[in-house]
Amino acid sequence: MELLKKRILEDGSNLGNGILKVDRFINHQVDPMLMDACGAELARLFAPVRAEKVLTAEISGIAPALMTAKYLQVPVVYARKSKPVTMPNQVYLTVAPSHTKGIKVELIVSPEYLGRGEHILIIDDFLASGQTIAGLVRLAQVAGSEVVGIGALIEKTFEGGRALLSSLNIPIHALAIITSMDNGKIVFAD
Amino acid sequence: MELLKKRILEDGSNLGNGILKVDRFINHQVDPMLMDACGAELARLFAPVRAEKVLTAEISGIAPALMTAKYLQVPVVYARKSKPVTMPNQVYLTVAPSHTKGIKVELIVSPEYLGRGEHILIIDDFLASGQTIAGLVRLAQVAGSEVVGIGALIEKTFEGGRALLSSLNIPIHALAIITSMDNGKIVFAD
Repeated sequence: MELLKKRILEDGSNLGNGILKVDRFINHQVDPMLMDACGAELARLFAPVRAEKVLTAEISGIAPALMTAKYLQVPVVYARKSKPVTMPNQVYLTVAPSHTKGIKVELIVSPEYLGRGEHILIIDDFLASGQTIAGLVRLAQVAGSEVVGIGALIEKTFEGGRALLSSLNIPIHALAIITSMDNGKIVFAD
Repeated sequence: MELLKKRILEDGSNLGNGILKVDRFINHQVDPMLMDACGAELARLFAPVRAEKVLTAEISGIAPALMTAKYLQVPVVYARKSKPVTMPNQVYLTVAPSHTKGIKVELIVSPEYLGRGEHILIIDDFLASGQTIAGLVRLAQVAGSEVVGIGALIEKTFEGGRALLSSLNIPIHALAIITSMDNGKIVFAD
């Protein structure tokens, strides 16, 4: 998606060690018009899989997932990283290592909002190591839901997430695919 | 806003002790079409204050703030509760007690995204005790920004937030105003 790639080059920063700073338009300050356009494009790409729900992880997956779900006209569920008082005591919980934070985070979904046989589209801001998304896949699977697609705004191919998730045999799309961040550069796949 | 009040009565639960569970459509599972409608209404209500940015707190403020910002065609900034590696070392940080969680939470904004003299509209899911919103006001003030309005999806008048914030002398709007949750009921202001 040219609009997103252009914005990454203009307003993103390569901080080294594969860390891409996009907090001017995605994950601290957010450009709602850009997120709306990305949501429209992800909804278009995933229209064939007929998702009944979008699943993401708090925090920075919420904006793209919400906009995608709006265009698909389905609800979005975001996995929580801590259990609020309003959630039942019995929950689905998995643990995923966070590459950027260097810690393990819990991903928690209430059984109320993942249904057996439900078609789930997973949307996140980044597809990097794939660990967070793999955690979301486990949550959906334990609930008996069926993951029908995985989408991200930005993929970093050199962290291997797509390979990790390829055994699922479902469509995976990213709107901006970065193949290298060596030497301070940001290189896109095409 | 009738659409939101209707939804609270249909899909919300009064858990007692003033806790309203709305995680079927606002803060775990989210209805993007409802959030879009709420964002449109908040943008309409706050059109006169000419906000240049929307400020909210992660996590559950993000959906309504994003949709409001989309209609106002301005960026949205969400205060983080922990400092990511992509954020500079020097930040604006304040501490706000969380009524629902029974703990104090940090609210952190990068100085990159709050500008001196900038007109800030604060949007959150709940206006209850007002402590989170008061924390956001402090962050904006220390940055030299000017808070021009405060909006929430749901207000619980019996927790006193509007009184706490009234000294700011700025417009405060909530789309569903709850005056009592005694005896398992949910009573709206009108």
